[in-house]
Amino acid sequence: MVLTRDPVFIVGVGMTKIDRWYTRSARDLFSEAMVKAIDDAGGVKPQALVVGNMTSSVLMEQDSLGALMADYSGLRGVPSFKVEAACGSGGAAFYAGYGLVASGLVDIVAVGGIEKLTEKLTAHATKALAQAADTEYELIYGASFTGLNALVARLYMNKFGYTDEDLAYWPLRMHEYASYNPYAQIPKKTSLEAILKSPVIADPIKLFDCSPIGDGAAVVILVRGEDRAREIARTMGRDVLVEVAGLGFSTDSVDLGSRRDLLTMDAVVRAARDAYKMAGVEAKDIDYAEVHDAFHITGYVSLEDLGFAEKGKVVKEWREGRFGKGDKPEVNFSGGLKARGHPVGATGVYQIAEVTMQLRGDFPGYKASDPEIGLAQNIGGVGTFAAVTILRRRR
Amino acid sequence: MVLTRDPVFIVGVGMTKIDRWYTRSARDLFSEAMVKAIDDAGGVKPQALVVGNMTSSVLMEQDSLGALMADYSGLRGVPSFKVEAACGSGGAAFYAGYGLVASGLVDIVAVGGIEKLTEKLTAHATKALAQAADTEYELIYGASFTGLNALVARLYMNKFGYTDEDLAYWPLRMHEYASYNPYAQIPKKTSLEAILKSPVIADPIKLFDCSPIGDGAAVVILVRGEDRAREIARTMGRDVLVEVAGLGFSTDSVDLGSRRDLLTMDAVVRAARDAYKMAGVEAKDIDYAEVHDAFHITGYVSLEDLGFAEKGKVVKEWREGRFGKGDKPEVNFSGGLKARGHPVGATGVYQIAEVTMQLRGDFPGYKASDPEIGLAQNIGGVGTFAAVTILRRRR
Repeated sequence: MVLTRDPVFIVGVGMTKIDRWYTRSARDLFSEAMVKAIDDAGGVKPQALVVGNMTSSVLMEQDSLGALMADYSGLRGVPSFKVEAACGSGGAAFYAGYGLVASGLVDIVAVGGIEKLTEKLTAHATKALAQAADTEYELIYGASFTGLNALVARLYMNKFGYTDEDLAYWPLRMHEYASYNPYAQIPKKTSLEAILKSPVIADPIKLFDCSPIGDGAAVVILVRGEDRAREIARTMGRDVLVEVAGLGFSTDSVDLGSRRDLLTMDAVVRAARDAYKMAGVEAKDIDYAEVHDAFHITGYVSLEDLGFAEKGKVVKEWREGRFGKGDKPEVNFSGGLKARGHPVGATGVYQIAEVTMQLRGDFPGYKASDPEIGLAQNIGGVGTFAAVTILRRRR
Repeated sequence: MVLTRDPVFIVGVGMTKIDRWYTRSARDLFSEAMVKAIDDAGGVKPQALVVGNMTSSVLMEQDSLGALMADYSGLRGVPSFKVEAACGSGGAAFYAGYGLVASGLVDIVAVGGIEKLTEKLTAHATKALAQAADTEYELIYGASFTGLNALVARLYMNKFGYTDEDLAYWPLRMHEYASYNPYAQIPKKTSLEAILKSPVIADPIKLFDCSPIGDGAAVVILVRGEDRAREIARTMGRDVLVEVAGLGFSTDSVDLGSRRDLLTMDAVVRAARDAYKMAGVEAKDIDYAEVHDAFHITGYVSLEDLGFAEKGKVVKEWREGRFGKGDKPEVNFSGGLKARGHPVGATGVYQIAEVTMQLRGDFPGYKASDPEIGLAQNIGGVGTFAAVTILRRRR
């Protein structure tokens, strides 16, 4: 059982600004991201494309998304398919794309994410997103995605003794970071007062605690083999390589009623364990992380389950300033799902693109402190899917 | 750029009978197929699951399908996601699953397909299936999936001078084969007269020229490394291994208006070329094939594009008896999509399971003549996606 695995590198990234793109189609957004990624990779032509997306079947009434995005991106004919893992579709697509290129099926693969939530009215998007839950055991009783996360938030606050104000420091900081990010949907600072006075969506989750509804596309390009990666870096005048050092992907029951513990996302714990092991690192070695904060509570629990804080303590530590500039890890300088935005199936790819740029030192927003090891964590549902990707900068 | 690739083997298969399973859910059908596949693989536990499916988001109003099927199959926690490539979702899932196991991300992977078309009324299924087409350029004008295939059938008949009767020999033979297949949705023989007198769906395609609407699930289990495959075969008392010798996957434009030639599925030609190359074989070396006959015309054009017949000649050759028992290749002894059935995203997995069983000599229906090299060809849309998988029997 010998497996000689050549390392895999990210050699190009491309993103659109996230917005409510009422006048642009998914194929238009996706091709913008693809063209940017190919340019960023010195013009290489991907030999395959994996597309992360959740809602195209329902909101766009469009299947065959893989071939459609390949064709409109100038890649007609390449192997291409859609990967769905709810809000974790982008991270899952990256996992599948890594398999295609690491196995030798292809030498260069593009992993893209695209979501067009504004194709129909917001009520339709809310219903489409609720399909991440178990339709027969949760959706049918009227549970929305925000509603299910609100259960977790209330339980967390009750158990560990936190207030609305304690939790509000998450969106506060995310909005500040996003104000520097040209790709962010909401590049605006806010205040504790504005957060606490925003309308309740599903108690205790208020409007400003939620990631927004938005559209966007992101693409990263992977190659196998250091020689090829180095050649592309040289072409682009870059002196660093970004290696995919570790990957973990795990699932849990879809319905919350079957979970072991509502306050721990077991899928995140497992995915992180596998990713750390593959990369040969521990949580304490991570310099920079983009974590999945669809709601403030999701961000907090994610930091704990990734091993960055003890259970129940992260909200206090965050409020005191942990995970900011100069700390280890620095977290979500993009502005997170909360303020950079959350174009569902694209989010996991945005995160990986952002971590890549932070490692290269060319992220055009709030900059991390020269990180060497980065992590991206993308989840689907209320911790139903978890993808953890560890990237390492190499000279 | 060194890549030492250990061979990958299919060590277990499981299928449900295809039917209109009004009283059974997708999770029920899928777990039946998974339990059968695990039993057939000596009880190994898959470390990951890839699920091929097209319509769950629309007809079941259910996303997160990967985690849901994993959980209900006793695999809670394993990496799992859904792959969509319209009717080619099963073949695409196999391609993705091969990547996971061949890359070393996991050692044992299950690839499953599931489709539950009877979850809503047939009119809804017809609309859901039409989403395989380009929604903005085809679906919006009322094009159904049968309608688009009818254009191809009419053009083929006009160009090469064939009649309805000439084409009717496809369903005739498929129904005969299916009558021996315990998994088939329509295990019944029919007559030329019945085929020709069946109602027109979209001229020239009649009811009996179409694959039926049905539900089903199939699973195959893949392992990396000959030692592990041999150990499982020994456990099961089997003296043959089934190796995944070649894989090809390709796409085309989604809308037919952008195609180079409506009578050639370029994606099939490319996928076959890549699969033959990887396996080190040619079309003439294939002993047994399961090809994608969503409509009679699809089966005929597939045989040509796989390299088994010259363009325009296959209908005549088929009518004269080619591709039957004792010929090379023998084709669709399962009964094909036409009569075994076509549970969309599961179809590609059924085909691979059937070819595996024919190579092992234990297919419980019409038996191939001791084949050594088998091929499965699965397409999505009207040739938008094509997956070609070549399996080789080893002693």
